[in-house]
Amino acid sequence: MSENLPPVQTQSQDPDQEHDHDHEALTSPLLPHYQRASNSTSQLAIVGVNVCPIESLDYEYEMAFLVFFLSNLVLTLFAAIITTFISPAAAGSGIPEVKAYLNGVDAPGIISLRTLIVKIIGSISAVSSSLLVGKAGPMMHIGACIASLLGQGGSRRYGLTWKWIRLFKNDRDRRDLVTCGSAAGIAAAFRAPVGGVLFALEEMASWWTSGLLWRAFFTTAVVAIILRALIDVCLSGKCGLFGKGGLIMFDVYSANISYHMADVPPVLLLGVVGGIFGSLYNFLLDKVLRVYAIINKKSVTYKIFIACTISIFTSCLLFGLPWLASCQPCPLDSTEDCPTIGRSGNYKKFQCPPGHYNDLASLIFNTNDDAIRNLFSKNTDAEFQHSTMLIFFVTCFILSIISYGVVAPAGLFVPVIVTGASYGRFVGMLFSSRTNLNHGLFAVLGAASFLGGSMRMTVSLCVIILELTNNLLLLPMIMIVLLVSKTVADAFNGNIYDLIMKAKGFPYLEAHVEPYMRQLTVADVVTGPLQVCHGNEKVGNIVHILKTTNHQGFPVIDEPPHSESPVLYGLILRAHLITLLKKRVFLRTPVRIGADAFRHFSADEFAKKGLGNVDKIEDIKLTEEEMEMFLDLHPFTNASPYTVVETMSLAKASTLFREVGLRHLLVIPKRTTGSPVVGILTRHDFMPEHVLGLHPLLVNSKWKPLRIALPRFLKIF
Amino acid sequence: MSENLPPVQTQSQDPDQEHDHDHEALTSPLLPHYQRASNSTSQLAIVGVNVCPIESLDYEYEMAFLVFFLSNLVLTLFAAIITTFISPAAAGSGIPEVKAYLNGVDAPGIISLRTLIVKIIGSISAVSSSLLVGKAGPMMHIGACIASLLGQGGSRRYGLTWKWIRLFKNDRDRRDLVTCGSAAGIAAAFRAPVGGVLFALEEMASWWTSGLLWRAFFTTAVVAIILRALIDVCLSGKCGLFGKGGLIMFDVYSANISYHMADVPPVLLLGVVGGIFGSLYNFLLDKVLRVYAIINKKSVTYKIFIACTISIFTSCLLFGLPWLASCQPCPLDSTEDCPTIGRSGNYKKFQCPPGHYNDLASLIFNTNDDAIRNLFSKNTDAEFQHSTMLIFFVTCFILSIISYGVVAPAGLFVPVIVTGASYGRFVGMLFSSRTNLNHGLFAVLGAASFLGGSMRMTVSLCVIILELTNNLLLLPMIMIVLLVSKTVADAFNGNIYDLIMKAKGFPYLEAHVEPYMRQLTVADVVTGPLQVCHGNEKVGNIVHILKTTNHQGFPVIDEPPHSESPVLYGLILRAHLITLLKKRVFLRTPVRIGADAFRHFSADEFAKKGLGNVDKIEDIKLTEEEMEMFLDLHPFTNASPYTVVETMSLAKASTLFREVGLRHLLVIPKRTTGSPVVGILTRHDFMPEHVLGLHPLLVNSKWKPLRIALPRFLKIF
Repeated sequence: MSENLPPVQTQSQDPDQEHDHDHEALTSPLLPHYQRASNSTSQLAIVGVNVCPIESLDYEYEMAFLVFFLSNLVLTLFAAIITTFISPAAAGSGIPEVKAYLNGVDAPGIISLRTLIVKIIGSISAVSSSLLVGKAGPMMHIGACIASLLGQGGSRRYGLTWKWIRLFKNDRDRRDLVTCGSAAGIAAAFRAPVGGVLFALEEMASWWTSGLLWRAFFTTAVVAIILRALIDVCLSGKCGLFGKGGLIMFDVYSANISYHMADVPPVLLLGVVGGIFGSLYNFLLDKVLRVYAIINKKSVTYKIFIACTISIFTSCLLFGLPWLASCQPCPLDSTEDCPTIGRSGNYKKFQCPPGHYNDLASLIFNTNDDAIRNLFSKNTDAEFQHSTMLIFFVTCFILSIISYGVVAPAGLFVPVIVTGASYGRFVGMLFSSRTNLNHGLFAVLGAASFLGGSMRMTVSLCVIILELTNNLLLLPMIMIVLLVSKTVADAFNGNIYDLIMKAKGFPYLEAHVEPYMRQLTVADVVTGPLQVCHGNEKVGNIVHILKTTNHQGFPVIDEPPHSESPVLYGLILRAHLITLLKKRVFLRTPVRIGADAFRHFSADEFAKKGLGNVDKIEDIKLTEEEMEMFLDLHPFTNASPYTVVETMSLAKASTLFREVGLRHLLVIPKRTTGSPVVGILTRHDFMPEHVLGLHPLLVNSKWKPLRIALPRFLKIF
Repeated sequence: MSENLPPVQTQSQDPDQEHDHDHEALTSPLLPHYQRASNSTSQLAIVGVNVCPIESLDYEYEMAFLVFFLSNLVLTLFAAIITTFISPAAAGSGIPEVKAYLNGVDAPGIISLRTLIVKIIGSISAVSSSLLVGKAGPMMHIGACIASLLGQGGSRRYGLTWKWIRLFKNDRDRRDLVTCGSAAGIAAAFRAPVGGVLFALEEMASWWTSGLLWRAFFTTAVVAIILRALIDVCLSGKCGLFGKGGLIMFDVYSANISYHMADVPPVLLLGVVGGIFGSLYNFLLDKVLRVYAIINKKSVTYKIFIACTISIFTSCLLFGLPWLASCQPCPLDSTEDCPTIGRSGNYKKFQCPPGHYNDLASLIFNTNDDAIRNLFSKNTDAEFQHSTMLIFFVTCFILSIISYGVVAPAGLFVPVIVTGASYGRFVGMLFSSRTNLNHGLFAVLGAASFLGGSMRMTVSLCVIILELTNNLLLLPMIMIVLLVSKTVADAFNGNIYDLIMKAKGFPYLEAHVEPYMRQLTVADVVTGPLQVCHGNEKVGNIVHILKTTNHQGFPVIDEPPHSESPVLYGLILRAHLITLLKKRVFLRTPVRIGADAFRHFSADEFAKKGLGNVDKIEDIKLTEEEMEMFLDLHPFTNASPYTVVETMSLAKASTLFREVGLRHLLVIPKRTTGSPVVGILTRHDFMPEHVLGLHPLLVNSKWKPLRIALPRFLKIF
C-alpha cells in the first residue's frame, strides 16, 4: 500500500538493469546512467506514487519504521489541516457532492477555487500517506471544479477572471459543463474515456440530453489524446513514473483467454459474494461515517485527532503484517525480476533471503495501483498463499472503511478495487482445480463484483473495467458478475454514494416517486404563510419581505386597481429583487414602465453570480424616503412560471419538478375565488422526510398504500 | 456482395484442407469427411449468408450469371411482395420507426406480430438477394417487436396470448421494454452488448432512467451469453457458418498497434472526408427516398417494379465489375489460402490463372461481412489496387443509396460500413508512404468516419466499432474520427434517421426547442373548437362528441348546479369513454356514484389495448332510450392532468410536454371568468410545421428573433 519504504533495499539500482537474481549488496553505481535513473525514482510529487525517499537505509528497521510512520503522519496531518481550515467541502470523494450539485443542490463551497486547490494538494498528500484512499473520486471533483470555474469565467473573488469565457452564466449551462468536467475526471483517473462518459451518465447526472452526451464524449476524447501524447513524451523516461507501472492502465490481458460453461458457477459465486460484501461494506461505511460525524461536530481538534489515529493505525498495521507471511522461493519461470527491489514489481524481498520474496509485502509495499496490477496479473497463480490473500483482504476491507471518513480528499474506487481483487483471487485459489481460468482473471472479476455490490453501476463499471484491463473478451463474464452482485446487494441497501449523500443531508430528488405520494395532492404539502409581491410594490415592503424570509423566489400578483381581479403575474427571484434595490432606480408613484426599465441595467447584472459574490439584503442601506417609493417589478418578473393546480397529485407534481428541473413550482387554486396563488413548492417540499413529517400516518408504513387499496379492491369483488 | 456464385469453382473442397496453392480441377471428394464439410456450406437459411448453392457449375458463365441473376431476382421479389402485401411497416431499417415510437408516436403496425414475421423472413431474403442492404436495423426492429409482444402478453388478434406475462399493459412499461428490445437487437447484430445499450440510449430513446439503463444492460448481457453459448455449441461445425467468418465479430486487431502524432493528419483528413461524404450520402438518400415515395404512391405494381429493377441492376453490376480488375499474383507470405475457393476468404480466384486472384471479385463475391473483414484485415497492404478500391467505393455508395428505398427490410449499417471501409482503405493507400498505420486500420477508421458522418452518433458508434474490432487501443483515433466527421457533417444536414423520419412525416418531438417558440404563448397555438364533457354527461352527447371528433382526450368540467362555478375536473380518454359505452351501465339521472362505479369493471378493461383491438365508436349501437340516459364520468376521469396557464411561453410548455412525456396538456385561462379550460395541446400542436402554419411571419426567418431583438437592444444603448 505504500512505497514509502522498500524495506530490503540493498542499494539504489537501475530499474532497467536488474536481470540477475542474486544481487551483490553494496554495489556502488558505476555509470552516470545509473545515477540518473536512481534520481528519477526519488521524485515525490507524482499523484498516487510516492517512491523510496530513503534508499540509503540498509536493514535498519526501527529507523525505517520511524521514517515510514512519521512521513505518513505528516502527510496525513497536512491533508487534514488544509482540508479542515481551508475547504471542508474538499473532504471525501466528491462524487456524492457533485452528484447532488447536478441534481440541483447548490451546497456552499462544493465547487469553488478553494475546493479545487485543496482537493489537488490534499489528494496527493492523502494518497501518498499510505492511507487506503483512492484518487478517482477526487479527480472527478477536480474536473468538476475546473469546469465550473471555466463556465463562470474564473473566480471573481480571487480576481482571476477571464471575460472571453464568461459565456455560460446560467445554471443549466454550468450544470452541463460540470457534467463534462466530471466525465473528464474519471476518464483521466482510469484512462477510460468511454467509461468516464458513461460514469457521468449513469451515476452523476440527473439530466441528460443527446447534445450533452456528445459534448462529454468530446471532452473525454481530448483527455484521452492528451494522456496518450504525454505518455508518448514520457516514454523517454523524463517524467519519473508517469505512465509507467499500474498507474492508469492495467493492460494485463492482451492475450486471448477462453472460457466455457463450466466456468459459470464460480463466476456466479463471485457475483453473489460481491453483492453480500458490497452491501455489508456500504452498511459499515455508513455507520462509521455517522460516528465520525458525531465526533467531528465536537471540535476541530477531534477531526485532526481521528485523522492522526487512523494514520498511525495504518502505519503499524502495514509495517507489522508482512511478518505474518513466510518467505517464498522465487518462481524459476517468471518473466519478471524476482525479487524486485526499489521499484514497482510483483515480488518484494522484505526480510527474505536472496532468491526469495515475501508475498504479503509484495502487495503491501507497493502503490495501490501496482498491488492491483499484481493481483490482476496472469501466469502468477503460484505467487500468493491462501493465508496472504485472506490477511490482505481483511486488512483492505477494514482500512478502506475507516480511512474514507478522514477529513481529507479520499476516493473509494481504488480501495474497493483492491479489496475486491483480493477476495476474487482467493476464490480463484479455492476453485483452481475445477476451472481453467487463471487467478488474475478471478481478481478482475472479484474487483468487478465488489464494485457492483458497492456502487451499483452496471454499464459504466463494465466499460471502465474493460478499458482498464484492455480485453473485450472478458465482457460477458464481467456483465454477469456486475448484474448478479448489483441484484444481490440491492436487496439489502442503497448504493454507497446515495448513502453518503443521505448522511450528509442533501435534498436529492430521486427519479422515481415514492408510492405514498400518489395519495397526496400538492395542497397537502404546501406549508407556511405565503409571501407575495405586487406588480407595483413599495420598496419598504420588498425590504421587509426579503429580511423576514429566506425564500429564493416570490410570486408577483396584480390586484385592483391595477387589474380587474387579483391575477398571478409571475415569479421573481430574490437575487433579482436585490439587484433592483441596489440600483436604487425607484418610482415616486406605482406606474408600469415597461421594457424601458432595462435602460439602467446591463444583462450581466442579472446573470447568475459565482458562489462567493451573492449580495445580501443586509448590505443594502436605504433612506426612509426611498422606502416609501415604488418599484415596477413587471419587467423583471418571469411571466411564465410553471404552475400546478392545488388538486394535482403530489406524485405528478414531483415528476414535473424533477423532469423539467425546476427550482420553484407555483400552486394555483382550483376554485376561481380568493388569492390567485396558493403557495410555492420547492425541492424541500418533495423530500420524503418533509412529506412524512406532515403526514405521520404514512411513516413506517411502506405497505400503507396496499393496506388502503386492498380492502377497496376486495370490496369490488 | 454476394455468395450466390463463386465463379471460379473447381470443385467442392474441404475449407480446412486447402493449403496447396495449385488446385487440380475436378478433384472428386475422397473422404466422407469432405462430403460433410461441403454439405454444411450449402445451407441457405442462415441470416445474412447465402452460400454457394450451385457448386457443380464449372466455368459456365452464362449459366452462372443466369442463376445468380434469377436467384437474386426471386429473393428480392419475394421480400418485396411479402412486405407490400402483408406488412408495409416492415420496409426499411425500422430504426426511424422505432425511434418515433419511443418518442411517443404510435403509427399503425410499426410494432406488431405481422411486422415481426415479415421483418424476419424479408430481411433474410433481402440480404441473401445480393442487394446492398444491412441487417442490423431489421434485427433492432425484430427485437423491438418481440419486446412489445412480450409486454402485451402476445397478440390477441391471432389468439397467441399468455396471461402470465401480461404485466406491462401501459404505455410507459411497454416503451421501456421496446427500448430494451432494440438494445438487444443491435447487441445481437454486432455481438456488441455495451454498444447495443448505448445505441438504444443515444439514438433510439427519448426518455431514459437509471433503472432502464441497467435493465437494458441485463437484456444485452443475456444476448451476449446466449450468443457465446451458441458459438461454443457451433464450434464443432454443426451449425453451418454460424459464428464463423466475419458474421458477427471482426476481431481483426488482437495484436498491439502503435501510432504517433505523425499519424494525426491522415486521421483528421479521414474525419473530414467522412463528414462530407456522410452528409452527401444523407442528402442523396433523402432525395431518392422522396422520389421513390412519389412513384410508390401510384400503385403497388410500381413498388414491385422498382424492387425488381434494382435487383437486376445490382446483379449486372456485380457480375460485370470484376472484369474491370486485373489478376494479381498471390502473395507468398500470406497466412491465408490464396486463392480461396468455395468459402469465405480474402482472395477470390474469379477468372484468374492458378496462383492468382481477382481483388475486386474478392470484395464483391463475398458476403458483406466478409468484404468488411477483408478490408479491415492487416498485413494485406498489397492486396488491393487503387482502381479496385475506387470502383468498389463508387459501387457501394451508389448501390447503398438506391437499395435502401426498396419495399423490403433493409438496414443501413452494413452498407455504410462497407462504403466507409473502402474509401478509408483508399486513403490509407494514398498515405502509405507517410504513415506506419496499416491499410486495414485505415479501413476501420474510414468506416467510423462514414458512420459518424451519416448517423451522427458518437459514444455508441465508438463502442460498437471497438467491440467489432476487439481492440481498445484504437479508441483515441476512433474518437477523433467520429467527432470530426460528426462536426463537419452537422454543418450540412441532420442525421440520416431523422431525415427519414421527417420524410415519413412522424411528429417527432425534438429535445431542443425552436427559438421562435420563446416568442409565442400557448394561447397562440391552441386551435379549433374545444369539445368538453361534463362530469355527469348525457350518453347521447358523448356519442355525438366521439363521432364528430377524432380527439383522443376530452376535458371534463363540472358546471352549476353540480358545482358553484364552472370548474375543471380532469381529462378523460376516448378509449375509456368507449369502454364505458360498451358496458352500458347507464344512469337514469345525473348523480355522482363514486368508486362504486368500478363494480362493473375489471382493471383489465381499462388497460392499454394492443394495436389490433381498438374499439370504434361506430361499432357500438345504442337505443334511443339509452341515448337519453346519463354517465357519471368522475370515477373514470384523470383528476390531475398536467395544465399550463394560457400565457405560458410555448417553449416552456413544449419542454414540459417533452420531458414529462405527455399526450395531452390542458390549457387553463389566466383570468378567472368564463370557461375553466381554454384548450388542449397535443403533440401536433408543438410541431414546427403547425406553429409556422399559424404564424406565417415566422416562416423562412431563422433570424427573426434577432431581427426583433436587435432594434430593441440598440434602443437601450
